[in-house]
Amino acid sequence: MDYFQDYLPGTTCFGCGSHNEHGLQIKSYWDGEIAKCIWQPQPYHEGWAQLTCGGVIATIVDCHCIGAAMATACRNEHRALDSEPKYLFATGSINIRFLKPASVKESLELHARVINIKNEKKYTLNCDVLVNQEKVADAQVIALLVYRSDRPEEAAPGFRP
Amino acid sequence: MDYFQDYLPGTTCFGCGSHNEHGLQIKSYWDGEIAKCIWQPQPYHEGWAQLTCGGVIATIVDCHCIGAAMATACRNEHRALDSEPKYLFATGSINIRFLKPASVKESLELHARVINIKNEKKYTLNCDVLVNQEKVADAQVIALLVYRSDRPEEAAPGFRP
Repeated sequence: MDYFQDYLPGTTCFGCGSHNEHGLQIKSYWDGEIAKCIWQPQPYHEGWAQLTCGGVIATIVDCHCIGAAMATACRNEHRALDSEPKYLFATGSINIRFLKPASVKESLELHARVINIKNEKKYTLNCDVLVNQEKVADAQVIALLVYRSDRPEEAAPGFRP
Repeated sequence: MDYFQDYLPGTTCFGCGSHNEHGLQIKSYWDGEIAKCIWQPQPYHEGWAQLTCGGVIATIVDCHCIGAAMATACRNEHRALDSEPKYLFATGSINIRFLKPASVKESLELHARVINIKNEKKYTLNCDVLVNQEKVADAQVIALLVYRSDRPEEAAPGFRP
């Protein structure tokens, strides 16, 4: 499987870094037009007893959407995830609603898609969070293109690969 | 110091459980009318290189606001944090904006307050996130009273201490 996170310009992120042994290590991929991610919480990811912590859900939604923005940018430019230039997105905002409690024993399935792109830099994504096909949360995430490897001089202050 | 988390009906939450050795273990307290929390990220809490992960910031904001809602409820009822009944809040929504990148080496300071209470159960909180007195993020969190120990029969489905 071709995971978005294998092509991000960084591997240590708490939410999605494949080399962060303390992190959540989510894996995102295309299923048709939908960016998907399936993630199994550990018992220590609970909030209240037996329920997955809302902040942990927000974290995987955030990182999944950042990966989905990068993958969408590559798709829109008809190029592979490993091609140049490399794009780095950062989160502008997360607006997440928790609709039902989610058992920490159940895996979460995330479905995201870009619904708008403004000025080539501001991506708006919708993301649903499902447990056993039932929606437990939904979110809107703004992902901002803060760095691109072919125009490093335009990088937003503080961001680099 | 009297920390809100020492009086929550649960100690294993990933964000604020004092007994979760994998967790973030935030500590919240009153400073006058403001609920405050100071938290130092570890290097593995980064997102992009050297910057604190947005999802981790959302997690501490979430848990801090849940603690602040509980503490505000006790204050409004003129009773101590260790008194009965025990209240359990859950997150209805988080709306967080990231305004500036935050160095993972810097501690984060959270300032929260309840700005509205509807039907005794729906608390709206504002929370600012500061680094060296500069605002790096702000959020609005809805905290819902889902369980109270004197009326367990009214608990929202799935929630218990």
